Amino acid sequence: MSAADLPPGWRRPTLDDIRAAARRIEGRVHETPVMHCADINAMLGCDLFFKCENLQRIGAFKARGAMNAVWSLGEEEAAKGVATHSSGNHGAALALAARSRDIASWVVVPDNAPAVKRDSVRREGATVIDCAPGMQNRESALARVVEETGATVIHPFDDDRVIAGQGTAALELLHACRNLSMLLAPVGGGGLISGTAITAKGQNPSIKVIACEPAAADDTKRSFVHGQRLTVDAPDTIADGLRASLGQRNFRIISELVDDVVTVSEAGIIKATRLVWERMRIVIEPSAAVPLAALLEDQVPGASGAMIGVILTGGNVDLEALRWS
Amino acid sequence: MSAADLPPGWRRPTLDDIRAAARRIEGRVHETPVMHCADINAMLGCDLFFKCENLQRIGAFKARGAMNAVWSLGEEEAAKGVATHSSGNHGAALALAARSRDIASWVVVPDNAPAVKRDSVRREGATVIDCAPGMQNRESALARVVEETGATVIHPFDDDRVIAGQGTAALELLHACRNLSMLLAPVGGGGLISGTAITAKGQNPSIKVIACEPAAADDTKRSFVHGQRLTVDAPDTIADGLRASLGQRNFRIISELVDDVVTVSEAGIIKATRLVWERMRIVIEPSAAVPLAALLEDQVPGASGAMIGVILTGGNVDLEALRWS
Repeated sequence: MSAADLPPGWRRPTLDDIRAAARRIEGRVHETPVMHCADINAMLGCDLFFKCENLQRIGAFKARGAMNAVWSLGEEEAAKGVATHSSGNHGAALALAARSRDIASWVVVPDNAPAVKRDSVRREGATVIDCAPGMQNRESALARVVEETGATVIHPFDDDRVIAGQGTAALELLHACRNLSMLLAPVGGGGLISGTAITAKGQNPSIKVIACEPAAADDTKRSFVHGQRLTVDAPDTIADGLRASLGQRNFRIISELVDDVVTVSEAGIIKATRLVWERMRIVIEPSAAVPLAALLEDQVPGASGAMIGVILTGGNVDLEALRWS
Repeated sequence: MSAADLPPGWRRPTLDDIRAAARRIEGRVHETPVMHCADINAMLGCDLFFKCENLQRIGAFKARGAMNAVWSLGEEEAAKGVATHSSGNHGAALALAARSRDIASWVVVPDNAPAVKRDSVRREGATVIDCAPGMQNRESALARVVEETGATVIHPFDDDRVIAGQGTAALELLHACRNLSMLLAPVGGGGLISGTAITAKGQNPSIKVIACEPAAADDTKRSFVHGQRLTVDAPDTIADGLRASLGQRNFRIISELVDDVVTVSEAGIIKATRLVWERMRIVIEPSAAVPLAALLEDQVPGASGAMIGVILTGGNVDLEALRWS
C-alpha cells in the first residue's frame, strides 16, 4: 500500500466519475446536513456553509470513498473481500462498506492505535489484524492477509474510486449552496481535496479550491510550491487524520486543480475545534477544524465577504483524552 | 420570581395555545432536526428519535418559551423591556427574544455563574446585572430593575406563555415522526415537560409522557408520588439545568398529564452524555442526557421495541471544565 508510481497513461477521475459515484453510493451513505452559524460568520466577516461529514456514517467522509470502491468491484473480485491497514477512519469506513455488500473485510491495525479506533473497526464488522507499529510491519501484515485471502486492497486515498467517492461531499454541498465562490477542505493524504477539486472545477472553474493543512505536517504545501511530491515523517500534530503524506494521484490532481495550499498553527486548530463545539454544538475532530483555523488565522486571501463552503471532515474524538465530571 | 400561588381560576394552556405559539415564533427560532442513531438503537433495543434542541438558537429549547413570551406582550408593555434572573440558558434566550423584537432586556446573573454563561447573555444583547449569589439577592436585584425600568418579568418556567412556547418542540417532533408511542424529556422547573405533555396528550392521549430527572434532584418524583409540590435545595447534580424546583403551574400540569417520573444516577448521566458525543457527534449538556440515561438504566417500562421521542434539551457546556490538547 506504499505509494506506487502512477500507471502509464493514468488520467484523473472526472466530474462524470464523481456523479457515477454519487449514484452508486446513494442510500448507502447519508446526505449530510449543511449548517451555518451566525456567531462564527460575524466573527470572520464571511458567510460559511459547513458540510457536516462528522454526521456521516462512521463519523467521517471516508464512508463515501470506501463505499464507492467496494461497490465498484466486480462480483468475483468482491467475493474475496477487501483489506487495508488503518489506524483511523478508513478502516471503519471499509468495514462498513464491506458489510453493506455482505462481503468480508480485514483491517490491519497497529498495536498503538487508540482502543476507540480499533473498537470502531470491529463494531463495523471487520476482522481486525493486530500488528506492531511502523509502516513496514503494517505493509507486511497486509501482504499476508492478501496472500491468504485474495482480498482486494483498498488504499485510503491514492485510489481513483476512493477519490471519486470523496468528491461526492462537494457535489452535495454545491447542489445545496449554489453561489459558493470558494471551497476549503483539509489535506492529509489528499483523497478528499482531490475529489473536491475535481467536482468544483468541473462545475465551475472560477470556484477557488483551497487545501488546508497543519504547518506541522506541511508536505502538501512544500510539494505544491516545489512542484514535486515531498513527504513528511511522523509529523507532530493534533490533527491525527492529516499525518499521512500525499499520494501520487493526489499530488498530481492537487498540482493541476487546487488554487492554493495554506497552513495553520496547532493553537489555531485547537481554537477552531473549540469554536465549533461551543458555537455549533457539534463534535468535530481536530483534523476537521483546519480550514476554519485557516480563516481564523487570516490565511485565506479573498475570504472577506465571500460565501465559502467548508467540509467538516469527521467527528471521531477520543473523549478519554478529555477530562469528564 | 419566587413561586407564587396560582391565580384563582387558572387553567392550564391547551394544544391550541401551543399551536398559536408555534405560529408566533415561526421563523424566529429554528425548526431543529430530528436525528436517529443506529448504534444507540441497537444497544437499547428500541427506536429513538432525538429532537435536537442543542442545535436551537442559543443552544437550548429555552429560545422557544422566551420568544413566545416576548412576542405575546402588548406594544406598551413590550416597550418597557423584559427582565429575569438566570444563571443558565433562560437569560440568553430572553436576551435573544428581546433583541428580535428590538426591545431592552435585563438579566440578573449571580457572581458565581460561569463566565461562559454571562458572556452568552451579554452576546445576545442583554444588560447584565451582577449580584451576589443566593435566591434572596437575585430576587431583590431583579425587583430593583423592575422598579427602575418598568420591565416585565418573564419567569423561566412558571409562566403560561413560556410553557406554550416549550411545547412547540414536541409539536414539531410529533409532526416529523407520527408513530411515536412515548415521549421522554428532562424535568427541572418543569417548563418543557409541561408543554410536551400538553402537546402529546392533546394530540393523542395514548402517547406516554415520561419526565426524567436526576435522582440527586428528585423533587418532581417526590412531588408526583406525594401529590404535593415538594422542593429541593441546591441539589448536587452534574445536570446544572435541572437544579430548580418545580413551579406551581408545572406541578399541576405534571400531576394531571404526565404518566410517570423516573430518576437516574449521576454516573448514568455522564455515560449517556458521552454516548451522544461519541456516537451521534453532537454536543449536549448533561441535563439533556437524562432521558437517555433513564433508558440505559432500564427505568422506562415499555421502552423495549417502542418508537420513542427524546428531547435533547441543550448543548451549552463549559469546555473549560474539559481538558484540551
